[in-house]
Amino acid sequence: MRTLYHLPLSPFARKVRLVLAEKRLPFETRVEKVWERRPDFLEMNPAGTVPVLVEDNGLIIADSNVICEYLDEAYPDLALLGRTLGERVEVRRLAAWFDQKFAHEVLRNLVWEKTMKQLLKLGPPDGAALRAGHVKLNEHLDYIGWLAESRKWLAGSSLSLADFAAAAMLSSLDFLGDIDWSSHPAVKEWYARMKSRPSFRAVLADRMTGLNPPPHYSDLDF
Amino acid sequence: MRTLYHLPLSPFARKVRLVLAEKRLPFETRVEKVWERRPDFLEMNPAGTVPVLVEDNGLIIADSNVICEYLDEAYPDLALLGRTLGERVEVRRLAAWFDQKFAHEVLRNLVWEKTMKQLLKLGPPDGAALRAGHVKLNEHLDYIGWLAESRKWLAGSSLSLADFAAAAMLSSLDFLGDIDWSSHPAVKEWYARMKSRPSFRAVLADRMTGLNPPPHYSDLDF
Repeated sequence: MRTLYHLPLSPFARKVRLVLAEKRLPFETRVEKVWERRPDFLEMNPAGTVPVLVEDNGLIIADSNVICEYLDEAYPDLALLGRTLGERVEVRRLAAWFDQKFAHEVLRNLVWEKTMKQLLKLGPPDGAALRAGHVKLNEHLDYIGWLAESRKWLAGSSLSLADFAAAAMLSSLDFLGDIDWSSHPAVKEWYARMKSRPSFRAVLADRMTGLNPPPHYSDLDF
Repeated sequence: MRTLYHLPLSPFARKVRLVLAEKRLPFETRVEKVWERRPDFLEMNPAGTVPVLVEDNGLIIADSNVICEYLDEAYPDLALLGRTLGERVEVRRLAAWFDQKFAHEVLRNLVWEKTMKQLLKLGPPDGAALRAGHVKLNEHLDYIGWLAESRKWLAGSSLSLADFAAAAMLSSLDFLGDIDWSSHPAVKEWYARMKSRPSFRAVLADRMTGLNPPPHYSDLDF
């Protein structure tokens, strides 16, 4: 069986889970505690990160963006990277925007500080990081809102990897109660559409010991 | 004329310059002082980073990885991303390794501390960052050496984007005199092959005010 090594709150893993589900590719998940640096896992992915996908034929694919590129080439029936060169440039630009810029400016400051630092007993969350993360989160929500208002989907007229990259990031932050939806109605409307997709069900059903999401988290009419 | 907005020492821009030259695509370069946050440039790339490529037909492509994916799709005669699904996974894994892991662990600690901080008058280089950067650089050189010894090119039997991603990073560090080649003979042999390619000439010819590379920098028989 196709296997995805992941962590439940990792937005990079969530993005891949969404793409696999959209493409109707069955898979099982295994939680990989990356901080334990398990030798067999490091052999599969020397970078030591999740997600890692292992195909039935033994092909090992590391890095969420590499996995998504692979899936669109190996299973092209539902194309999530765009059709024309111009569309593909915009989808990839936005996917990279969320994977790198959003992750660096927001995710690291909020999700890392609130979950991983606690888990690894590295001390309490750093207030300055949390404040910086929230300032940047608001800027990013403004940008997502602008995209959602000017286009049908974030990268244009078609649902694409850009939507899943963004929705995966927001779903992890929403689990931690970090998003003020009322201030960003256009983002809320777009995210409600994403959340209602069947591919989102398994992601929203995840629960972790000691962490409870806010009441609206898995409510499709939040 | 096809235009690449860049900074001379940016390894991300160097990677794109190498790929353009390998594909024999003529282009002109324009230095973009990204720290000035020029409004017209931010309109082209809201992330505010170089490189940005502007095609003759007006298509604007930001993010070095997005540009390289685009170039391999638009100009496929010389394919740099691999042929089979498995080859493409390995090329992309290594390209992402250098763009992200190497950049985060080495580039930020060495090139940023030694050049940008000085340029932006943010204070002297941080000794701890320099030391951490050198420790990580040695680990990465060991890994590149292992790849170079076990394969013809870094990602396998064909020259690929992985080689250009790695060589671009090393060329920027070598400009600053940060690489001890004598300790890494396999890396040196591979890098000498890369440096001898005609595509490398323009990169090695770059000079910047106030910064001089070591004598071996542009010597092909270093």
